[in-house]
Amino acid sequence: MKKSTYSLLISLCFSIIYAQENVDFSGEKKIISPEVHSNNTVTFRFKAPNAKKVFLEGDFLFQQGLSEGKTEMKKNEKGIWTFTTSTLQPELYSYKFTADGLAINDPNNVHFSRDVATVVNIFIVPSGKAELYKVNDVPHGTVSKRWYDSPTLKMNRRLTVYTPPGYEKSKENYPVLYLLHGAGGDEEAWITLGRTAQILDNLIAQGKAKPMLVVMPNGNASQSAAPGESKEGFYTPEFIQPDMFSGNTEKAFGDVIQFIESEYRVKKEKSSRAIAGLSMGGFHTIIISANYPKTFDYMGVFSAALFQPKEAESEMYLNIEKKLKAQKENNYKLYWKAIGKTDFLYKEATDFRNLLNSMNFKYTYKESEGGHTWSNWRDYLSEFAPLLFR
Amino acid sequence: MKKSTYSLLISLCFSIIYAQENVDFSGEKKIISPEVHSNNTVTFRFKAPNAKKVFLEGDFLFQQGLSEGKTEMKKNEKGIWTFTTSTLQPELYSYKFTADGLAINDPNNVHFSRDVATVVNIFIVPSGKAELYKVNDVPHGTVSKRWYDSPTLKMNRRLTVYTPPGYEKSKENYPVLYLLHGAGGDEEAWITLGRTAQILDNLIAQGKAKPMLVVMPNGNASQSAAPGESKEGFYTPEFIQPDMFSGNTEKAFGDVIQFIESEYRVKKEKSSRAIAGLSMGGFHTIIISANYPKTFDYMGVFSAALFQPKEAESEMYLNIEKKLKAQKENNYKLYWKAIGKTDFLYKEATDFRNLLNSMNFKYTYKESEGGHTWSNWRDYLSEFAPLLFR
Repeated sequence: MKKSTYSLLISLCFSIIYAQENVDFSGEKKIISPEVHSNNTVTFRFKAPNAKKVFLEGDFLFQQGLSEGKTEMKKNEKGIWTFTTSTLQPELYSYKFTADGLAINDPNNVHFSRDVATVVNIFIVPSGKAELYKVNDVPHGTVSKRWYDSPTLKMNRRLTVYTPPGYEKSKENYPVLYLLHGAGGDEEAWITLGRTAQILDNLIAQGKAKPMLVVMPNGNASQSAAPGESKEGFYTPEFIQPDMFSGNTEKAFGDVIQFIESEYRVKKEKSSRAIAGLSMGGFHTIIISANYPKTFDYMGVFSAALFQPKEAESEMYLNIEKKLKAQKENNYKLYWKAIGKTDFLYKEATDFRNLLNSMNFKYTYKESEGGHTWSNWRDYLSEFAPLLFR
Repeated sequence: MKKSTYSLLISLCFSIIYAQENVDFSGEKKIISPEVHSNNTVTFRFKAPNAKKVFLEGDFLFQQGLSEGKTEMKKNEKGIWTFTTSTLQPELYSYKFTADGLAINDPNNVHFSRDVATVVNIFIVPSGKAELYKVNDVPHGTVSKRWYDSPTLKMNRRLTVYTPPGYEKSKENYPVLYLLHGAGGDEEAWITLGRTAQILDNLIAQGKAKPMLVVMPNGNASQSAAPGESKEGFYTPEFIQPDMFSGNTEKAFGDVIQFIESEYRVKKEKSSRAIAGLSMGGFHTIIISANYPKTFDYMGVFSAALFQPKEAESEMYLNIEKKLKAQKENNYKLYWKAIGKTDFLYKEATDFRNLLNSMNFKYTYKESEGGHTWSNWRDYLSEFAPLLFR
């Protein structure tokens, strides 16, 4: 195309930019933040010429010897505050800025996740385990948000389904991993913070995990969908759900399995069903798999424990030792438990292991560094998924 | 469950809260912002005790007589800045705060959208047309992110597919609307900013639109997927793509249709295909439908014009009048054009109408208030979708 035409088109583009809502296009040189350098150091930049003090807060600062996960940034002559880390371990990290006491997301980073009621910017330091969290040039599965009927809860509810690459064209039946979120989470948690689609795409491409569906339901029995995704509207999510220990999520779990097995091309045997969850979802995993001992051959209990209400409201929580005994006698292929050494549930998780030991209930145990964090939960999923359906 | 057990569980929940990453749980009374009152006034609250001046910026402030879309907030004794609007028209709105010159998203509102490279908080003022943007208690379609091969572009690419409620269980074949984004957008734009799933769910439930698939591809030919969703990683999106007027998006559009018609249960006749787009996507709609005059019976050109490069790089842009003539002679059911009175493309859009008039090329024309905005594009979709496949 001739230069004159090209100039016209470009000038039209600039008009579009100026006319667009919400868009800040000052013509200034772009600020790049965060900038992940090739040696895995990272530079953060934030323009705030009038601020007196700007801090960077991020989970990665602990490994820099900054015990509060916080460091002061330095202002240059253009009013841009900067901080460069030393080399960081491969990981998906989150951060925010604080300017004169105000928490601020990085305006130059459009990548973020919602963690319960907090929105944080994210970035990936590549290589090592973080290669699993990246979108790589491999075949990609499909991620769908679907609605299903739960007759038990008398509700139409939303869940997230990952189908593996090739699912749509194949005639094969696939195994299913049911993957459960923690308190304050919902059907969005594993797919965003947990990087489930990326981890599965990459593990499957490497031949390390079998192609499988991953079903991520909403584990809050009174909620039909994530905030903003149901008729409840744009509310702010809470950690504590009114019916958190009502047993209703566990009781209604058959509706999820029923929906998936009637709507997807999946295998319907115990040997092709796995269930795993983090924190509250790990508790749900214990309860559900013990109450339905003929349903799952693979259990994953991440950073969780068994709470044994002595007089429970729900039959789901009654006679749990007896139910675990039945689960043991029914046999299973893998009961996988993992927890971080500094997890606040470490003692309760140890109590549960002691109970299992006393019953001679076989399980595989992994103790990692760290605590009750998404970093650990992504690790656990990356390690657990390859063990399934062998 | 007994009180003692309940207390134990609640105290464990609180431990979870404190142990959770990224979560600010100070025990303070929650700040509710924005608060949409029953009379459709809205209160914004923002805690910044040390700030000297805090402004609220939002598209809804224009209708309050604030010509810059900006207003100063007032601080109370607790350091919380507040502003209450008068009654607002039903709409999905966006806003941000500015504290002493720093732009800040509302930390108490987890609901936001990305508009090209800017992240903005959103809220809905209900009733009227905005009822279409809400998730109501109606049957919901499925939204999927899928990857397809484009042999023309030699790329694996991502698109968004909305399938209507009942699609999975029905044996019916459905018609398809291909819905195209503007400059700087991608396969996420229509489903987030455009509220496509909500608008279609609601129109279908009201019997106003036929059940249809809506396919939202990525119209940037050099891009395989939205920022963060491809091997290019977490980059910042730009308005101007290097090959914006290369004709490649238009040329490769057959790959999208081919994929949808081989993978979904859809009708494959001209009378069951519609194509529409906003701004750059409206331009794409004109070019694609004119180059493939036997493909679509329904065209929607939203806030767009025809640029006629005299010596174009791509055969897609050559002899466009001749192609429009062929499109006219081939017949079609609807050519629907809409633009806002203050749109910066108004003159160019009028030139295009004049060209169509001179050719006696039939079209339906809607002139709305406002400019080049998502508010108009949601309106246009809400009006256009009911006209399809009749």
